[in-house]
Amino acid sequence: MEVKEILFMNKGDGENSYVKSSGYMQKVAAATQPMVSGAVQSFFRENCSNPPLEVLNVADLGCSSGPNTFTVMSTVIESTVKSCSELGREIPEIQFYLNDLVGNDFNTLFKGLTVIEEIFKNVPWFAMGAPGSFHGRLFPRNSMHLVHSLYGVHWLSKVPKLTNEGGLPLNKGKIYISKTSPPGVREAYLSQFQEDFLLFLKCRSPEMVPDGRMVLIFHGRKSADPTLRESCYTWEILAETISYLVSQDDVQHCLLSPSNLSKMLLAKVQNQCISAFDSIVVACISRPKGEFESLSLNFLAIRE
Amino acid sequence: MEVKEILFMNKGDGENSYVKSSGYMQKVAAATQPMVSGAVQSFFRENCSNPPLEVLNVADLGCSSGPNTFTVMSTVIESTVKSCSELGREIPEIQFYLNDLVGNDFNTLFKGLTVIEEIFKNVPWFAMGAPGSFHGRLFPRNSMHLVHSLYGVHWLSKVPKLTNEGGLPLNKGKIYISKTSPPGVREAYLSQFQEDFLLFLKCRSPEMVPDGRMVLIFHGRKSADPTLRESCYTWEILAETISYLVSQDDVQHCLLSPSNLSKMLLAKVQNQCISAFDSIVVACISRPKGEFESLSLNFLAIRE
Repeated sequence: MEVKEILFMNKGDGENSYVKSSGYMQKVAAATQPMVSGAVQSFFRENCSNPPLEVLNVADLGCSSGPNTFTVMSTVIESTVKSCSELGREIPEIQFYLNDLVGNDFNTLFKGLTVIEEIFKNVPWFAMGAPGSFHGRLFPRNSMHLVHSLYGVHWLSKVPKLTNEGGLPLNKGKIYISKTSPPGVREAYLSQFQEDFLLFLKCRSPEMVPDGRMVLIFHGRKSADPTLRESCYTWEILAETISYLVSQDDVQHCLLSPSNLSKMLLAKVQNQCISAFDSIVVACISRPKGEFESLSLNFLAIRE
Repeated sequence: MEVKEILFMNKGDGENSYVKSSGYMQKVAAATQPMVSGAVQSFFRENCSNPPLEVLNVADLGCSSGPNTFTVMSTVIESTVKSCSELGREIPEIQFYLNDLVGNDFNTLFKGLTVIEEIFKNVPWFAMGAPGSFHGRLFPRNSMHLVHSLYGVHWLSKVPKLTNEGGLPLNKGKIYISKTSPPGVREAYLSQFQEDFLLFLKCRSPEMVPDGRMVLIFHGRKSADPTLRESCYTWEILAETISYLVSQDDVQHCLLSPSNLSKMLLAKVQNQCISAFDSIVVACISRPKGEFESLSLNFLAIRE
């Protein structure tokens, strides 16, 4: 079974759901909205000599079940209204395509849209759910004006091949690129990311309109060394937690009750390791010029 | 609370789900596909002098959680391929907008799309979920080439006002237009349907492209008298069932366990009353010419 068939954020809106436990992501979303707003404004500015746009198509890739995607929707609506008012142009209807894997909880996502309905009663907007992997085609040719992804693009489509030619495991006892991992492990992860990211861009390319914009927010690293503590501290916590569960003979119990596992991981991650990441990359890409603007944000600055 | 906020078909894919108990609807869908196919073919034929279409946008309104909407999708894909091949034109990408109320089980719907993925691997198609009431705007202006609705349009948006000027109930003890109901009851239902259907058409009008097509399949009646047995037999069964539950002191139990109620109703409806309906109307509307073609199908012929 492929990863895309089984991967999803915790469903519903209970205590352990993504909806209730994505506070940190909300802060990242809030901190990166100026880039989203800037992309919308520059799109309208550079296209103001064209005929008025009837519909602005906007995709949020890896939107999960809310509420971060609602922050993005609000920013796009507000920026569109502001840009069009400043340029003296009619406000287009805005069509949002909210994408995530098929296992995502779209039911909860759709119920949450009432938040946006209540705020933007006088702006014509529509929201669609677009199920599927962004490592494949999602939308028709030449349709998207703005593509946004918050913390989605660094997810790999599958576990890299981590065995040597003899079929023996390259990274035995580890779940990440550690100081003791052989070079082949790093190369396997890098190769998988390169393959996935290239495929992502190849799939988006025909979907974007000329001069469309992409704003991609994902993990980055300033250092070339992936084994530095700040790069893999999250995985250390995860590995420690799994080891602890094994030692307590609790694995079976936790597998039967995934919410327990996620709760433990959540507590560990939130309390101890959030400062360990190095940076967030916000990449703003303009097509077809291929202009690339990137911004690096410090995790701690967002956290506090 | 409005009807549109609480109304949905039974979720999931269990024994009492819509997915598993919509066999009759599947037969109606199968019987009406020639009209859908004809609408697609006539659309391409009449537009073959225009520049090639890049994307064919198709909406299915009131799609529920499958599998009937998959029948419609298959028909549209097959008809598009056939029409374009016959006319020597490039096959456009096909974008489906699957609509139902926010409470619909879109998660189950999206999982079911693998059926279509397996059949049509070489045709470019995409599917979106479009949550919302079709008594309001759902899509951007000038976007839809084909709008289809199977058994959706005859649902009223709300219960009509069934009280007289003094606030007393007009239809006491009844849940439908019966022989003993005063004329005001019939007028109230008719007025509500007229209001809803007019609103439906007003909302679709700006959404359709010029020369777009609508195929609407809904209940109809050949007789002007709504109290004939064949028109209200379903409601008699429903009323009888509720009376039975009240007499058995089972109402509270059944309300706490809605699947029991739906199971009883389903059994009653499927076993006893399906032949009672008079006809199905299939309306095919072409915009902006306003041409209207309708077909009346006999229920029993479909049932058998």
